[in-house]
Amino acid sequence: MNYRFSDTIESFKSSAVREILKLTQGRSIISLAGGLPNEQYFPTDAVKQAFNRVFEQGSGVLQYGLTEGFTPLRQSISKHLARKGIHVGIDNMLLTTGSQQAIDLLTRVYIDPGDVILVERPTYLAAIQVFQSRKATIVSVDCDADGMSLEDLERKIQKYLPKMIYVIPTFSNPSGKAWSLERRKGTLDICKRNNVLILEDDPYGELRFGGAASDAFPTIFSLDEQANGSAVVYTSTFSKIVAPALRTGWIVGDQTVIMHLTRAKQAADLHSSSMDQQALHQLMEHFDLYAHIDLIRTEYEARMRQMVDLLKAKNWDGVRWIEPKGGMFVWVEMPKHINTSELLKLAVEEEVAFVPGESFFADEPETNMMRLNFTHTNSEEMVLAFDRLDRALQRMLQTVSAR
Amino acid sequence: MNYRFSDTIESFKSSAVREILKLTQGRSIISLAGGLPNEQYFPTDAVKQAFNRVFEQGSGVLQYGLTEGFTPLRQSISKHLARKGIHVGIDNMLLTTGSQQAIDLLTRVYIDPGDVILVERPTYLAAIQVFQSRKATIVSVDCDADGMSLEDLERKIQKYLPKMIYVIPTFSNPSGKAWSLERRKGTLDICKRNNVLILEDDPYGELRFGGAASDAFPTIFSLDEQANGSAVVYTSTFSKIVAPALRTGWIVGDQTVIMHLTRAKQAADLHSSSMDQQALHQLMEHFDLYAHIDLIRTEYEARMRQMVDLLKAKNWDGVRWIEPKGGMFVWVEMPKHINTSELLKLAVEEEVAFVPGESFFADEPETNMMRLNFTHTNSEEMVLAFDRLDRALQRMLQTVSAR
Repeated sequence: MNYRFSDTIESFKSSAVREILKLTQGRSIISLAGGLPNEQYFPTDAVKQAFNRVFEQGSGVLQYGLTEGFTPLRQSISKHLARKGIHVGIDNMLLTTGSQQAIDLLTRVYIDPGDVILVERPTYLAAIQVFQSRKATIVSVDCDADGMSLEDLERKIQKYLPKMIYVIPTFSNPSGKAWSLERRKGTLDICKRNNVLILEDDPYGELRFGGAASDAFPTIFSLDEQANGSAVVYTSTFSKIVAPALRTGWIVGDQTVIMHLTRAKQAADLHSSSMDQQALHQLMEHFDLYAHIDLIRTEYEARMRQMVDLLKAKNWDGVRWIEPKGGMFVWVEMPKHINTSELLKLAVEEEVAFVPGESFFADEPETNMMRLNFTHTNSEEMVLAFDRLDRALQRMLQTVSAR
Repeated sequence: MNYRFSDTIESFKSSAVREILKLTQGRSIISLAGGLPNEQYFPTDAVKQAFNRVFEQGSGVLQYGLTEGFTPLRQSISKHLARKGIHVGIDNMLLTTGSQQAIDLLTRVYIDPGDVILVERPTYLAAIQVFQSRKATIVSVDCDADGMSLEDLERKIQKYLPKMIYVIPTFSNPSGKAWSLERRKGTLDICKRNNVLILEDDPYGELRFGGAASDAFPTIFSLDEQANGSAVVYTSTFSKIVAPALRTGWIVGDQTVIMHLTRAKQAADLHSSSMDQQALHQLMEHFDLYAHIDLIRTEYEARMRQMVDLLKAKNWDGVRWIEPKGGMFVWVEMPKHINTSELLKLAVEEEVAFVPGESFFADEPETNMMRLNFTHTNSEEMVLAFDRLDRALQRMLQTVSAR
C-alpha cells in the first residue's frame, strides 16, 4: 500500500526537541522539561470517593451523555467562574477533553486556511501546532514583562487583518508572566474596535503566588462584562487544579459560538468522558476545592522560590529571568551565544532536561531561551538538577570559547 | 462583535431530524431513534470495582498519560483482537475518544479538501458529517443484502479516483446487514489493486446473533493478513460491549498511519481520559468480558426477534426489511409514497420516535426508509411503540390517499 497522507501531516512533524527528550526515557534524568502538576498534591482520595458517589446513581451513569457535557458539572463550573467575575449560563459553556480540545475546536469553527491569528511572542507550542494544522498564518506580537505591546498589536492588526488573537495573559506558558490590567483592557479595546476575536487560554490562572487576591489578575473575558456578543472566548481546565487524567476542560463564550463548537465536537468525538465529568461534579459538591488550590499555591510557590534562589546562586554570566507571579514555569534567557537546543544535548548527557525556547516561537525563534518547570521536581532533585545544568553549561561555554 | 465563522460550520448544520427529535424531550415518548445500548446490561459493579482497583495504584494514575493511550490497555486490546484474527502490536494501535474520534483523526491525516471518499449507500450519518467538514467529496456505492456491489465499486473507483473507502461491513448502521465473505474479499482486492485505503468501522461486530461462530464474519482487516502496509485501517470501541460513558475506542493499522494519527491526536486533545483507559484495563483483567458479551447477544437477539415479529404482525402494506444477523438496528423500507420524515412528525404526535432514513445517504436520499433501534426499549414498550407507529402510519396513509 502506498499511503497518500493529507497535507496536514506536515504540521504535525515531530520536533527535534521531542526527539532529544525521547532519549531521556528509561534513564535517571531529572526533568524540568514537562508541564506536569505534582502528583503528590492530587486529591486522590477525594477523587476516588467522587467516582464511588457516581456509581451510587445506578447504571444510567454509564450511558451516552450530552455533547455539551454533564449539565450539573456545567452548573458547578458556572458557579466557580462567578467567583472570578465570569458570569455565564450553561448555554455559554461546552465541556471538552482538556483545554487543548477547546483550542482545536475553536480553530475549526472560526479559522479558514489562510486566516491570520496573532499570538504572543513566545506562546504555547501546542496551540501553534493546532493553528498550523489548520493552515492559518500565525503572526507574533511583541511582548514585554507587562504583556503584549499595544502599539505592536494595533500595528499588526492594521497590517495583517487577523480574525483571531490567542493569548495566555495569566502566568503564561512558557514565559510565566502576568499581564498588567492596562494591557488586558487595552487588548480588549483594540480587538473590539477591530472585530478581532480573542481566545483567552487560562489553565494556570488559579496558581497565583504571593497571597495575591482573587481579583488581582482579572480575566479579559470578565473585563468584557458580557457573555453573549463577547469579543472573548475563554478556556480553562481541571488539569492543573485537580488532575490531568480526568481530561476535563471548558470553553465559554457567546451562545452562537458555543452552538457551533458543540456541533463540531459532536462530529469530533460525540462527547468527552462523562464518567470523569460526573466524578468532577461530585468532587465539587463534596470537597473543598478552594482549600486544595490554596495548598497547591503554597507548595508551588515554595518550589518556584527554590528555583529562583538556585538561579541566583549559580550566578551564571548574562543569565536573566522574570520571577513568575504564578503558574508552573520560569522562562530563562541565556546569553545570545548560547543555543539552548545545543545545550539540551549536553544537559541530557548530564542527566537533566528542559525545553529549549525555540519551539515556543511561531516565527523567527530566539535560540537562547529555556523553559524550566518547577512544579514537578522535589527539593533535593531541584538542587541536583541545577548542579547538572551547571556542568552542561560549563561544557558548552568551553566549546563556544574554543571556537 | 460580528463573528466571522469558518466555512466549516456549514457542514455542521443541525438536521431537520435533530430538530424534530428535540420535541421528544420531556415527553413520554418511546424512542426507537437512538443508537443506545441498554443500560440494564452495563456491568456497573464490575466497572466500579475496576475504578477502585485503579485508585489502589496511587496518585500517579491521575497524571497526564501517553497520547497513544494507556499501554497495558493497548496490550489487552491486542489480545482481544487476536481472538478475531487481527494480529497487531501496540505500535499499530491508538486509543481514541470512542471510534467517532478515530474517524475524525483519520480524515484529518489522510484526506485533503476535494479528495473523494466512497461510502456505502446508506451509511453512518456522523461519518458523513466528518467527511463533509473536511470538504471531501462523498460518493455512495450501491449495496444489496450481501454488502457493497463490487461492480459499482470498481466502476466508481475508475470514475472518481477516491483516496479512501469507508465501510461498516458487520451489522451496519443503519442497515443492520452483514457483508458476505465474497464481498469482503472482493472489496479488499479491488482497493489494494487501486491503492484505495479502507476505513473499516466495526462498533457492532461482537453483537452477532443466531449463535454464529466468532469467525463467521471476518473483518476485512484480518483478511489482509498484515498490519504494517495494510490497505485497511480498523476501528472499534468499548461503547457497545462495556459502556459508552467511558468513551474509549481504538484504531489499528500500519505503524506510519498510527504515528500520524497520534501526532494529530496530540494537537486535538493531548490524550483521552486515562482514568477510563486504566479502569477498562482492570476490567479486562478481572471480569469475564466474553461471558458478558454472550449475555448481551442473547438479550439483544430476543429484542430484535420481538421487533421483527411485530413488523410481521402489523403486516403493513408494502413494508420490507432484512432480518439483522447482529447489531442494534432494523432498517425498514416503506412504500415509495411514504416520506418517513413526514411520518416522524405524526409519530412524535403519537409519542413514538425513529430516525428517518434520509440522513444516512451521502447523496440522493431515499425518503421511504426508517431506522428502528431494538436494543434500548423493553418488551412492553416495544409493543406500545408499534401500536403508536401503526396509528401514525394509518393517519399518514389517509392524508396521502386524500391528496
